[in-house]
Amino acid sequence: MTYCAGLLVRDGLVLIADTRTNAGLDNVSTFRKLHVFETAGERVMGVATAGNLSVSQSVLALLQEGVALPGVAERETLLTAPTMFRAAQLIGHAVRQVLQEIGQALDDAHVSADVSFLLGGQIRGGPMTLFMVYSAGNFIECGADAPFLQIGENKYGKPILDRAIASDTDLYDALKIGLISMDSTMRSNLAVGLPIDLLVMRRHTHRIELAHRIEPGEPYFTDLSQRWSDALKAAHMAIPKPPYAPSSG
Amino acid sequence: MTYCAGLLVRDGLVLIADTRTNAGLDNVSTFRKLHVFETAGERVMGVATAGNLSVSQSVLALLQEGVALPGVAERETLLTAPTMFRAAQLIGHAVRQVLQEIGQALDDAHVSADVSFLLGGQIRGGPMTLFMVYSAGNFIECGADAPFLQIGENKYGKPILDRAIASDTDLYDALKIGLISMDSTMRSNLAVGLPIDLLVMRRHTHRIELAHRIEPGEPYFTDLSQRWSDALKAAHMAIPKPPYAPSSG
Repeated sequence: MTYCAGLLVRDGLVLIADTRTNAGLDNVSTFRKLHVFETAGERVMGVATAGNLSVSQSVLALLQEGVALPGVAERETLLTAPTMFRAAQLIGHAVRQVLQEIGQALDDAHVSADVSFLLGGQIRGGPMTLFMVYSAGNFIECGADAPFLQIGENKYGKPILDRAIASDTDLYDALKIGLISMDSTMRSNLAVGLPIDLLVMRRHTHRIELAHRIEPGEPYFTDLSQRWSDALKAAHMAIPKPPYAPSSG
Repeated sequence: MTYCAGLLVRDGLVLIADTRTNAGLDNVSTFRKLHVFETAGERVMGVATAGNLSVSQSVLALLQEGVALPGVAERETLLTAPTMFRAAQLIGHAVRQVLQEIGQALDDAHVSADVSFLLGGQIRGGPMTLFMVYSAGNFIECGADAPFLQIGENKYGKPILDRAIASDTDLYDALKIGLISMDSTMRSNLAVGLPIDLLVMRRHTHRIELAHRIEPGEPYFTDLSQRWSDALKAAHMAIPKPPYAPSSG
């Protein structure tokens, strides 16, 4: 399992991904699911992946080697795509190409070939954008009304994002809220776990501002988790008990 | 969609269910999903249902009319079952009986026949118990380590239960925490909605202590929702921002 979240706010973009993968419950490993494509000062992109690891790794390899788009002479990579929209199309084409090759074999083996991607970043001259690409290669763009997208085990960590993230949230507050969302998910699903990779990109700088891996036992994340737990406890203790009168029956 | 939660604490049992059902997104209705079977002073049970409404309603009808168990001469109902364990078996048998009759036809029509049930209560002389019954008729019992069970849209509301519910939680605090869990679910999934039905049963009283329906706009629930929202906001504001230093690159 995997949980990745992308948060697109006024000043920039945050991408967060866990690193736990499992093929069955008895085969758990750590793999990087958050990848950087950067030509500093010109373009910066982060790609987070969820789902079948062999499919997503093949897609990433294609994105580096080059994807043949219909009607485009040269193979394109994420470092040559002219726009973020084209970059999302590239991922979609790469997914379809990989699934054409191995989708049937995976299906025959009753292995899910499902994958999904978050693509976030900015190319000089264009807007900063965040996309979610599905297994079929189709994709959606993150909007201002709900300025985040999630892939993988998304539900446990969604309530805090629904309540706390707005377009004008400070960039490092967004990072913090994303980490709370990750902490809630890890607590409810053991298949999502540390280390956590994170990226911060500030709008119009076209470079990675912060790339960090949170290892188990890191003081800040441990403190965040404990403070959040304590605060939730205090929050529900502070709410009055229900006033409903017992039934007469 | 549906969300139902059962919380089994030292002093008793809480069952909470929403009432929204939808057959497609354009056909949304209100149906009771929380049902009481009571012979006050002798036995009390609550049954919450999720999944295909036609299947769960047929199961409930059988539970009232009587289910034929293999090797048992008389048809049994929830009001005649000798133990809570037998009551859970009855639900399992009723589900299998209904699915034998209409499961194939539903499958042919590409309609999911999935259902699940929470059964909680106490029969004089026996323990207070909470069961979850699956579509196949198998069931599990709630234990002291995680003193709650959920059916339906369970993930959004699970983090608060994971953190806040313990066996020794006060009975009406458990009700309050269950309502916070419901509020989080409703906020993240529009297919779960008001009114909310709730039941409270105190251990060894063998009767419903509180049966209540929360209608839209009810002051206590509105206040709980607002306080919880405000508290979450205050909680994440109080956590320091991440101390990670920007990348040098």
